[in-house]
Amino acid sequence: MRRAIALAARGLGGTSPNPVVGCVVLDASGEVAGEGFHAYAGGPHAEVVALREAGGRARGGTAYVTLEPCAHTGRTGPCATALLEAGVARVVVAVPDPNPVASGGAEVLRRHGVLVDEGVLTAEAEEGNAAWLTFVRARRPYVTWKFAATIDGRSAAADGTSQWITSPEARADVHRLRAESDAVLAGIGTVLADDPRLTVRPSVDSIAPPAALPASPRATPVLRVVADPGARTPAGARVLDGEAPTLVAVAEDAAVPAHLTHVVRIPRAKGGIDLHALLAELHGRQIVSVLVEGGPTLAGAFLREGLVDRVVGYLAPALLGAGASALGPAGVSTITEIHRLEFASVTPLGPDIKVVLRPKITARQSFPHTDPLGADPQVVQSPKES
Amino acid sequence: MRRAIALAARGLGGTSPNPVVGCVVLDASGEVAGEGFHAYAGGPHAEVVALREAGGRARGGTAYVTLEPCAHTGRTGPCATALLEAGVARVVVAVPDPNPVASGGAEVLRRHGVLVDEGVLTAEAEEGNAAWLTFVRARRPYVTWKFAATIDGRSAAADGTSQWITSPEARADVHRLRAESDAVLAGIGTVLADDPRLTVRPSVDSIAPPAALPASPRATPVLRVVADPGARTPAGARVLDGEAPTLVAVAEDAAVPAHLTHVVRIPRAKGGIDLHALLAELHGRQIVSVLVEGGPTLAGAFLREGLVDRVVGYLAPALLGAGASALGPAGVSTITEIHRLEFASVTPLGPDIKVVLRPKITARQSFPHTDPLGADPQVVQSPKES
Ligand SMILES: NC(=O)c1ccc[n+]([C@@H]2O[C@H](COP(=O)([O-])OP(=O)(O)OC[C@H]3O[C@@H](n4cnc5c(N)ncnc54)[C@H](OP(=O)(O)O)[C@@H]3O)[C@@H](O)[C@H]2O)c1
Ligand SMILES: NC(=O)c1ccc[n+]([C@@H]2O[C@H](COP(=O)([O-])OP(=O)(O)OC[C@H]3O[C@@H](n4cnc5c(N)ncnc54)[C@H](OP(=O)(O)O)[C@@H]3O)[C@@H](O)[C@H]2O)c1
Repeated sequence: MRRAIALAARGLGGTSPNPVVGCVVLDASGEVAGEGFHAYAGGPHAEVVALREAGGRARGGTAYVTLEPCAHTGRTGPCATALLEAGVARVVVAVPDPNPVASGGAEVLRRHGVLVDEGVLTAEAEEGNAAWLTFVRARRPYVTWKFAATIDGRSAAADGTSQWITSPEARADVHRLRAESDAVLAGIGTVLADDPRLTVRPSVDSIAPPAALPASPRATPVLRVVADPGARTPAGARVLDGEAPTLVAVAEDAAVPAHLTHVVRIPRAKGGIDLHALLAELHGRQIVSVLVEGGPTLAGAFLREGLVDRVVGYLAPALLGAGASALGPAGVSTITEIHRLEFASVTPLGPDIKVVLRPKITARQSFPHTDPLGADPQVVQSPKES
Repeated sequence: MRRAIALAARGLGGTSPNPVVGCVVLDASGEVAGEGFHAYAGGPHAEVVALREAGGRARGGTAYVTLEPCAHTGRTGPCATALLEAGVARVVVAVPDPNPVASGGAEVLRRHGVLVDEGVLTAEAEEGNAAWLTFVRARRPYVTWKFAATIDGRSAAADGTSQWITSPEARADVHRLRAESDAVLAGIGTVLADDPRLTVRPSVDSIAPPAALPASPRATPVLRVVADPGARTPAGARVLDGEAPTLVAVAEDAAVPAHLTHVVRIPRAKGGIDLHALLAELHGRQIVSVLVEGGPTLAGAFLREGLVDRVVGYLAPALLGAGASALGPAGVSTITEIHRLEFASVTPLGPDIKVVLRPKITARQSFPHTDPLGADPQVVQSPKES
């Protein structure tokens, strides 16, 4: 199953609005006969790829699948049927399909005499599908806030200069993060101050290793979104350069200039536009994951609204002591209101470190997606019956 | 030698104003015959301890010493002579003694026919003696700035509340840091705001493992120092509780109230007292290492003056978005003036991470001590993500 989860991850960035799925088929003697992953929406499902490779060896064998096989006929035909036709004797599933349209695959298989084990490496597999599971369960995109700062939390010097606090390695990693997202979001403050392009540029610093980008090419470029209540995005802004589609999210009452052609109107809320409404709008556009790239004001608003599922920080071994903070007001006025998270990982990245954090799950809190790090990922749970 | 370096470290906090030293004696056949470290000033030197354990087996053997054996007769007699008398055939030295009074041991040994190898694991051994080497070479104490903050660099919420941002594990580690230092320094701002005790309290949170404190007990308690230009330390301040000696460093022109009994007058400089003069004063008092515990203003001044040898940060997986920054103005007005450092280590500490940084050695810069970590920073991955 671990291998299937690794295979699934190769689809990250390519499969939206589908989940990532990996599958390993063993023959009756337990040898690996076929492997597959879902690479892009509309492409063959993981099970189909793996069964194709396994051919006749699948008969009497076992299929490990990271997500419950679908039972409905979408663009590719139900996988449960494919597994039955191949004569697989046993199917091991990590995560049950939460999608009401697709689920039922396990039941279909069982009805036809296939042994189905569920709940194997569930936490680990959910982790790999965190974005899609949030998309399905919470009916909004999975939100990652990314920031780059010194170890004292500053992202610019006192005079506003900021190039380059983090290393080329860190910047290359940001492009990988973007490539794994369906949309990249920035506030109008950042667009006016930095005029960023917000596109995926694998070799922007000519040092990004090719392996840093996801294995599967995206069917569509990453959508650029600007949170711009007053429709102030200038005609010459790089986000309007046409290299990728750009959606400008303006307030309901904004006067929109002619150069803004792709605009969505969002109700006003504290500080700007209603971020819940913005995410609902993106959900409707099949955006499974959004990377919030700042700035500090917009990031603070997302945090205040409880809309951050993951924080990715690039921390440079440097100190500024003055200048803009990486994070602006986030609804905390006293220490008991602090946003508590947990380190999911800390990794060196060139001279910098990359920290990944997730909201801390307390006993009384319930989050739209199951936290994959709450449980010990090494523990294989005993298969559930019926 | 690696074993000798580990032994040396057991003396940290006890040996000032002496270096930490470790020694391993092998007999003629290469078996370990004796081990020792210097535990406290005035106590037996590492070589003497190891030779005593080795007894007659030292004859024809090899001694590994982290620091060149002394050739002068201090409180304990020269170690070079002890090695000669024991009949050791070969001495392997990591770091030459920079102290003009004590050095010459290698030459004495060679003159008597002993084979002396120098420069073995020098960088690693210098790292272990960084404080003492700075003390001797730069003629000032080794300065560590410690801070605790959220991952966005804040040490208090907007209303000033701050208890507890970091975990009991992190706070226990701070007590270990204090115990390894000869003096702990705070600015008057911190004394007035937090009224800290600045003492070493091993079990303050009743969770500090006993192993967290240095192996050798201190001969003298850690000196508490307050940078207090205006002699504003109040009579009731906890730093004046008598639990440890406290030195109040006031400006030359300060009117000192009667309750301040241990006072040193320091010339004024930008922002307060002259920190170079303060360190010279502490050097004169045989203070080998100083832990600067803040606050942000004083820490910024130390950094601006180029007087920080090591930064230890405790970063909590939390976000505040507002409130006091961990570091105040540090002389950086534009990005090119940024204080560049290097990660020496990153380690999980309960839910937090501890980062250790050192000034980056550039080709044109020369620091009083050789940086041992120019090589690979040792980053320990959080155990949570597999
Ligand atoms: N460290 C990093 O990783 C990083 C990343 C990006 C940017 N930055 C820096 O951040 C600076 C710009 O930051 P900023 O804070 O001024 O701008 P920002 O966060 O990019 O944008 C803030 C603006 O977003 C709009 N907005 C829309 N909905 C909002 C809501 N619900 N709540 C709050 N704002 C909302 C508002 O526009 P209206 O005022 O029109 O209402 C607001 O002024 C630049 O200097 C840039 O260099 C740093
Ligand atoms: N995050 C952490 O780890 C941490 C650690 C400690 C404290 N803190 C927080 O920091 C806050 C207090 O910080 P603070 O910045 O006000 O006080 P501070 O840094 O503790 O003290 C500043 C004062 O030190 C004196 N000083 C002496 N020599 C100086 C020099 N060369 N340069 C600058 N100042 C010099 C000045 O006193 P005069 O004004 O009398 O001239 C100055 O006002 C508290 O709220 C505390 O909770 C945080």
